[in-house]
Amino acid sequence: MSAPPPERPRVTPPDPGWRRVRLTVAYDGTDFRGFADQPGVPTVGGALVDAIRRASGVEIELACAGRTDAGVHGWGQVVSFDLPAGQCEAPDLARLATSITRLCAPAVAVRDIRVAPDDFDARHSAQWRSYRYSVLASPVPDPFRVRTTWHVPVPLDLRAMTLACDPLIGEHDFSSFCRAATRADGTPAPLVRRVIDARWVALDDDVLQFRITASSFCHQMVRAVVGTLVDVGRGRRRAGEMTGILAARDRHAAGQLAPPTGLCLWEVGYP
Amino acid sequence: MSAPPPERPRVTPPDPGWRRVRLTVAYDGTDFRGFADQPGVPTVGGALVDAIRRASGVEIELACAGRTDAGVHGWGQVVSFDLPAGQCEAPDLARLATSITRLCAPAVAVRDIRVAPDDFDARHSAQWRSYRYSVLASPVPDPFRVRTTWHVPVPLDLRAMTLACDPLIGEHDFSSFCRAATRADGTPAPLVRRVIDARWVALDDDVLQFRITASSFCHQMVRAVVGTLVDVGRGRRRAGEMTGILAARDRHAAGQLAPPTGLCLWEVGYP
Repeated sequence: MSAPPPERPRVTPPDPGWRRVRLTVAYDGTDFRGFADQPGVPTVGGALVDAIRRASGVEIELACAGRTDAGVHGWGQVVSFDLPAGQCEAPDLARLATSITRLCAPAVAVRDIRVAPDDFDARHSAQWRSYRYSVLASPVPDPFRVRTTWHVPVPLDLRAMTLACDPLIGEHDFSSFCRAATRADGTPAPLVRRVIDARWVALDDDVLQFRITASSFCHQMVRAVVGTLVDVGRGRRRAGEMTGILAARDRHAAGQLAPPTGLCLWEVGYP
Repeated sequence: MSAPPPERPRVTPPDPGWRRVRLTVAYDGTDFRGFADQPGVPTVGGALVDAIRRASGVEIELACAGRTDAGVHGWGQVVSFDLPAGQCEAPDLARLATSITRLCAPAVAVRDIRVAPDDFDARHSAQWRSYRYSVLASPVPDPFRVRTTWHVPVPLDLRAMTLACDPLIGEHDFSSFCRAATRADGTPAPLVRRVIDARWVALDDDVLQFRITASSFCHQMVRAVVGTLVDVGRGRRRAGEMTGILAARDRHAAGQLAPPTGLCLWEVGYP
């Protein structure tokens, strides 16, 4: 199986006298209907566009590294947009970041702001994305982790879940773990992705965290993978089944979708 | 200075055929108006009494180790109450704990349930209480720590704050750090308390945590102490001033009250 040739979209540079700005943002996604701006509903993208307009007086178009779903969190989400060059000196940008954070408080915070090269685009320039998914494996729920973990009240076999990660690594068709998607011309969108790393880490306090890095992800991929791995962890499937599930290229072959609460877009890599 | 003789209240034992039950509960205090049951407002105690009534059919009276204020959290809060002996077998209690957690979800969870000796009382039997107060010392706020930390956006001098803890340890009149209180007969309640340990711990991710253990605490004591120590950390006061602030026995001598968000009743010690 060979992947489609890597997408090489032409990134439109900023207009003359404008600069491209890159922002790293963290957000608690609990009370948002996802990232992508939709009129009339609270979204992270909508909150950012609104805050940037109010703080800078500029109507912007936002590109983002990962359009997270409703309830999914961000720690290292990256977005890009253009501003007049006169608003892009370091102190201007520092003030802008503070204003955006204040306007979006407390659910969204700007962690970094900088001028990027003209050909930078938060989505198309990204070389890899890392997601983390946190599972609270404990008989009792934890009021302080309700918003950021999936509570699974039975013991999970970490070794089996770790074994089941291995077949994911490399380049595969992830049809078994993704919602089918179509291109603008109606043909099916390719669901081949390259997974660079996938592993479980045991944190303190009964939290098991799944960490996965890939060139890019298709829709609901991490949540479907985690749902299936947790089935392995609780003994409903064997680790050895993962290879067959991948090969089936059928969404019904894999497990349930893990809830969005546990998922966080952790980091995005650029050249 | 000598402390008043230790309180030795007579604990009323359960009625014949009843047993005393001890519960350890965790709660996110953000959406509660404190612990103490007050008609018509959401309180942690009210939620527990209500859930126990619905789950057991019994109308109970609740004793608790620490009546936390509005917005203050609990991890190891302990409460006690009486149930008919016929509802106190181990499987009955396990089911009761699960029911209470389900009825109070997601903000309150029962971490432990057990039968206690007849002379046990969550408040009067306690030998010490530990509180933890978390400060996020970072230029940027963190959406995931909004509910559980005080965000102080300037660097704090951990060494100075640590030095300033030392005078707190031992038996002192804490009038400078507490709201004045009166007894039932109108005389002022004594504000002498014995602090067993007080220290700062640097956690990862810019969180500084104040940990204090005492025989008991007077009202708003931890928050007033933290407000004063953070004044030291940001250079508004010197560590050497703490001894004089304590000796003043005047609430105006100490600093501002730290917000409730950062405070958590961590653990309670019994014989």
